[in-house]
Amino acid sequence: MSDDHDHHDGNDDHELRVSKIRDGTVIDHVHGGQALNVLAIIGIDGSEGEEVSIGMNVPSDRLARKDIVKVEGRELSQDEVDVLSLIAPDASINIIRDYEVIEKHRVERPEVVTGVLSCPNPGCITTAGEPVISTFEVLDDAVRCAYCETIVREDIALLIDT
Amino acid sequence: MSDDHDHHDGNDDHELRVSKIRDGTVIDHVHGGQALNVLAIIGIDGSEGEEVSIGMNVPSDRLARKDIVKVEGRELSQDEVDVLSLIAPDASINIIRDYEVIEKHRVERPEVVTGVLSCPNPGCITTAGEPVISTFEVLDDAVRCAYCETIVREDIALLIDT
Repeated sequence: MSDDHDHHDGNDDHELRVSKIRDGTVIDHVHGGQALNVLAIIGIDGSEGEEVSIGMNVPSDRLARKDIVKVEGRELSQDEVDVLSLIAPDASINIIRDYEVIEKHRVERPEVVTGVLSCPNPGCITTAGEPVISTFEVLDDAVRCAYCETIVREDIALLIDT
Repeated sequence: MSDDHDHHDGNDDHELRVSKIRDGTVIDHVHGGQALNVLAIIGIDGSEGEEVSIGMNVPSDRLARKDIVKVEGRELSQDEVDVLSLIAPDASINIIRDYEVIEKHRVERPEVVTGVLSCPNPGCITTAGEPVISTFEVLDDAVRCAYCETIVREDIALLIDT
């Protein structure tokens, strides 16, 4: 049975690595190894008591290996979903209430992300302490700083402004 | 039923947040919110395909909230366990083979940790690029640099040399 035929909170029971949650968000089909970057994007490190379950490098049909992040009692903002799309382009977001999926959607890449990534160019005006908010255009396989045009293809997660 | 009456891989089924592993290590009874620091200590971020399951801020009898980290196919070295004790003094380490706990032990605080923490004192000889390996004495509720005697009580995890 494929994990594309999901029910309840996004996994078949027989492959469940992390148990069902009552209310919250399941971020499924994250590329293997990206779960900690997902946590960074949604601003969770556990220190504020958030109930979170994570499976890393779980065997998957759709991806060779996937990560899955389940956050109890929290639904994601559109901004957070937009940024997620940069590091987890195949992710599905499942909103759970009373153990049932009430909404399920894929992430979509935004055209622009503002205020979430730091430009790696030390000469860029956005990193010079000026009151300029970082802005990146989202390309098919990269992001480009709207100010200095630096293009970043890999390790976009390292640019996340935490 | 208390989670002190554990069997198999360290949890009663009815409270299982992350499923059983076949072979590896379960680090249980980590203080709530410290799971990501545990990963940092054992040098795992998922990028190398490690199968890891994490539960954060799981309700527990022994601790108000606990974290649990399960690492498939990996047993910890004594050095790693020693450093874990600094941030997770109540942790229990369960070595699992074929789904059964074959060894279970508490972490013990070492007297000294060498080469794993960085002194936060910028004037300390261990941070000056000299060939001196950081050494901290472990006190009851803190660590003390053996060179400059700086004492760190909180956020010891931030000193971990990754």
